[in-house]
Amino acid sequence: MTATQSFLERVQQIGETLLQAERDEPVTPYRACSELRDQLVSRIGQLAPARQGASIEAVLDGLEQIALCTPRTGSRRFFNQLFSGRTEAAAAGEMIAALLNTSMYTYKVAGPHALIETVLTQHMARFVGYEHGEGIFSPGGSLANLAAMIMARNEALPNVREHGLDGQRLAVYASGECHYSIRKNAGMIGLGRQSVRWVEVDDRGRMMPEALDAAIAADRQRGVRPVAIIATAGTTVLGAFDPIEPIADVAERHGLWLHVDGALGGSALLTERHRHLVAGAARADSWTWDAHKLMGVPLSSSVLLVRERGMLEKHFSEAAAYLFHNDEAAFDHGTRSIQCGRRNDALKLWAAWKFYGDEGYARRIDHLFDLARYAADEIERRPGLVLTCRPESITVCFEAVGKPSDAICQSLWREQRAMVGHAEVRGRRIIRMACANGEMTREDVDAFLDTVEEVAAGIPDGDNAVERR
Amino acid sequence: MTATQSFLERVQQIGETLLQAERDEPVTPYRACSELRDQLVSRIGQLAPARQGASIEAVLDGLEQIALCTPRTGSRRFFNQLFSGRTEAAAAGEMIAALLNTSMYTYKVAGPHALIETVLTQHMARFVGYEHGEGIFSPGGSLANLAAMIMARNEALPNVREHGLDGQRLAVYASGECHYSIRKNAGMIGLGRQSVRWVEVDDRGRMMPEALDAAIAADRQRGVRPVAIIATAGTTVLGAFDPIEPIADVAERHGLWLHVDGALGGSALLTERHRHLVAGAARADSWTWDAHKLMGVPLSSSVLLVRERGMLEKHFSEAAAYLFHNDEAAFDHGTRSIQCGRRNDALKLWAAWKFYGDEGYARRIDHLFDLARYAADEIERRPGLVLTCRPESITVCFEAVGKPSDAICQSLWREQRAMVGHAEVRGRRIIRMACANGEMTREDVDAFLDTVEEVAAGIPDGDNAVERR
Repeated sequence: MTATQSFLERVQQIGETLLQAERDEPVTPYRACSELRDQLVSRIGQLAPARQGASIEAVLDGLEQIALCTPRTGSRRFFNQLFSGRTEAAAAGEMIAALLNTSMYTYKVAGPHALIETVLTQHMARFVGYEHGEGIFSPGGSLANLAAMIMARNEALPNVREHGLDGQRLAVYASGECHYSIRKNAGMIGLGRQSVRWVEVDDRGRMMPEALDAAIAADRQRGVRPVAIIATAGTTVLGAFDPIEPIADVAERHGLWLHVDGALGGSALLTERHRHLVAGAARADSWTWDAHKLMGVPLSSSVLLVRERGMLEKHFSEAAAYLFHNDEAAFDHGTRSIQCGRRNDALKLWAAWKFYGDEGYARRIDHLFDLARYAADEIERRPGLVLTCRPESITVCFEAVGKPSDAICQSLWREQRAMVGHAEVRGRRIIRMACANGEMTREDVDAFLDTVEEVAAGIPDGDNAVERR
Repeated sequence: MTATQSFLERVQQIGETLLQAERDEPVTPYRACSELRDQLVSRIGQLAPARQGASIEAVLDGLEQIALCTPRTGSRRFFNQLFSGRTEAAAAGEMIAALLNTSMYTYKVAGPHALIETVLTQHMARFVGYEHGEGIFSPGGSLANLAAMIMARNEALPNVREHGLDGQRLAVYASGECHYSIRKNAGMIGLGRQSVRWVEVDDRGRMMPEALDAAIAADRQRGVRPVAIIATAGTTVLGAFDPIEPIADVAERHGLWLHVDGALGGSALLTERHRHLVAGAARADSWTWDAHKLMGVPLSSSVLLVRERGMLEKHFSEAAAYLFHNDEAAFDHGTRSIQCGRRNDALKLWAAWKFYGDEGYARRIDHLFDLARYAADEIERRPGLVLTCRPESITVCFEAVGKPSDAICQSLWREQRAMVGHAEVRGRRIIRMACANGEMTREDVDAFLDTVEEVAAGIPDGDNAVERR
């Protein structure tokens, strides 16, 4: 940064440098944490804050160095998480939100952003099929699930919000493939982790409604009170979709709240071609839907949607004379959130959605699903690779014959070839390839699979059997 | 945005325009929400996403219009919340974090940012006085308090995480001036909102340790089990500091977890001159400390600190074979968080802290406290204004003689003069002026108070008495 440069110019410069580096070198060199620390210290000095401050120029130079050794989640060699890529409009929205620094609790302070939050959550609610729904941005899918589980608990046991849990034995139902936040949240909200029943799944990882029904009936017989069903639209590993229609039938029959964790798969709502995976969506009482996964928006941009307007306020509103002055109560979203101060996670999604339009988003999601299918076809075609099962959405699980999946993932990382993670499916350790970057093409998939095979060839044989959880 | 411009150049341009507008016009014109919507629609078209996408140029033009009608929380006329101003280094850090788009759960994906999170939370833990402490960034103070209350509950009742609450009557203690998240969280985690005991405060709004002790004893006698004490360092309205030392004595005597909600006042730890307000800090089991309040970092940058390393993992860890591979377990912070995917709230604080240094931060906090004292002096000096009580930190509560506080705040906003909120103290509605912008000077305080008096003169007389809550 030169003396005449504004910090904004310097940010732009660092951004351009970073984007170029990402194209030139899609994976940063592997460094163990201690090595990375040493490398950074040699370039920018001690990482811990010092007694004395530094010039803004020096700090921005430091930011540049840190940026350049950050794992490149936006590159075409990143298959490690359920997000990747960079939608420029969304990145721009997030950068401007950083400058605006509003908090989303009241219209007075959030202004147009409160309006944008309403517009977006209404738009998303309509994709679910909610006619009188509402929504709120949440810091992430886990906490959106948390809020949903709290609503479900409170609706089942109306005294709980005021007077606490009374010691009844309670149960929550989710598939054995659901996200770990369900168990974690059950522990957090006082139900206990053991209250989660892992309902049997079919060979594609989808919850079996008959098994669900049986589990609920068994609990009732034992005097355990069912509280909620959590279906998953797009499981974390297999990308599987629990069948919402028959699960909703079970929920209705037993009078239970049905939440759909669509952190990953909510985006299937955007496309006619894949909406069948979430048929019955509107029968759920609530949905989690992360825009920061398949919609190319920077973390976090997660939304909790509920079917019945007023439900969020009913369970999360608190009087706060210093804050809520009812200037525009419908836009004082703080009364509907589990948070108080809340950063603006809406503007970036607004920018991205304006850029794509509904149609562009449908194409993007279809493209990602198609890429995963293509990857599965390729894996099936290659004798050295074994597909775990056909993908329902954007994750592709596979093994290299006779080679340990964890060692392959490690080598890909250490050799700076690609980033991808491993997971466990039915007692085997598999490679989980996530197709979340809308810019990726079949060539990227081919290149990745070639690389996996190359790297696997150099690795000692080993088994992928693991103890079942 | 021109055809040859990158989105980063256009972001820079929008940023410069915004900063200039903020200097020229520190308060945006008042618009009711429906008016603001109409104005935006006339400038950029429908707010809701359309079927068809738009050019990136058009989207960025839209972002510029939205930015320009956003309440200017960074200006010198913004006294409305416990945050304000803009530290350029921090804004730069946040903008770069948006481009990097890492998630903070594992070292593999977060890389240097996992290291930075450790370095910063350790640095902050040392300011508290924790020798073997640890910390984690949280989406905000409310949720940091939530996590602390969960740990407190689980430590008191070791079976709860696994088996749920058993119906024992439980109680949590906080001052009547504490943040509303305490009551809300008690409802969320299954204790019930009614489990919170509002301990009496003195005339400055500080919890009275004898009253706390008595409340605990009374509960025990009634068969209610005390679970946790929550002291507040910097209450939301009066900015008061509960006396930690004697409260810690009570906690120790009764074997209770002591959490300090220092979302606002944690920053007093940074300055020798004001550390006495948090004397005994290290005796607490946990602390909430928001850097996005007094430390000039964009929302959110909130940290939960605990005295005993391992405590976070004990209460929040979950096995997740797809995610936690123990590459660098000490830096896989996801095992210590209430979240799974988690945005990078650390880099902006790192940049700000490097820029200020410990000494610069001490000066900043002292300056803010001094400004509040100066404002209080000025209010006492002016016959038309009445100070509610001497400020302990950065909020200054006062009334204009015979004029309704809410109407004054409304007029200041509507007349585009300043943004400030009102609150309730001991049955009266007062104006709460928050001094959170480190760039502000005594001249800004004078100008604000002049404006309040001018505006008050034009308002019909009225009473500020409100029903006590």
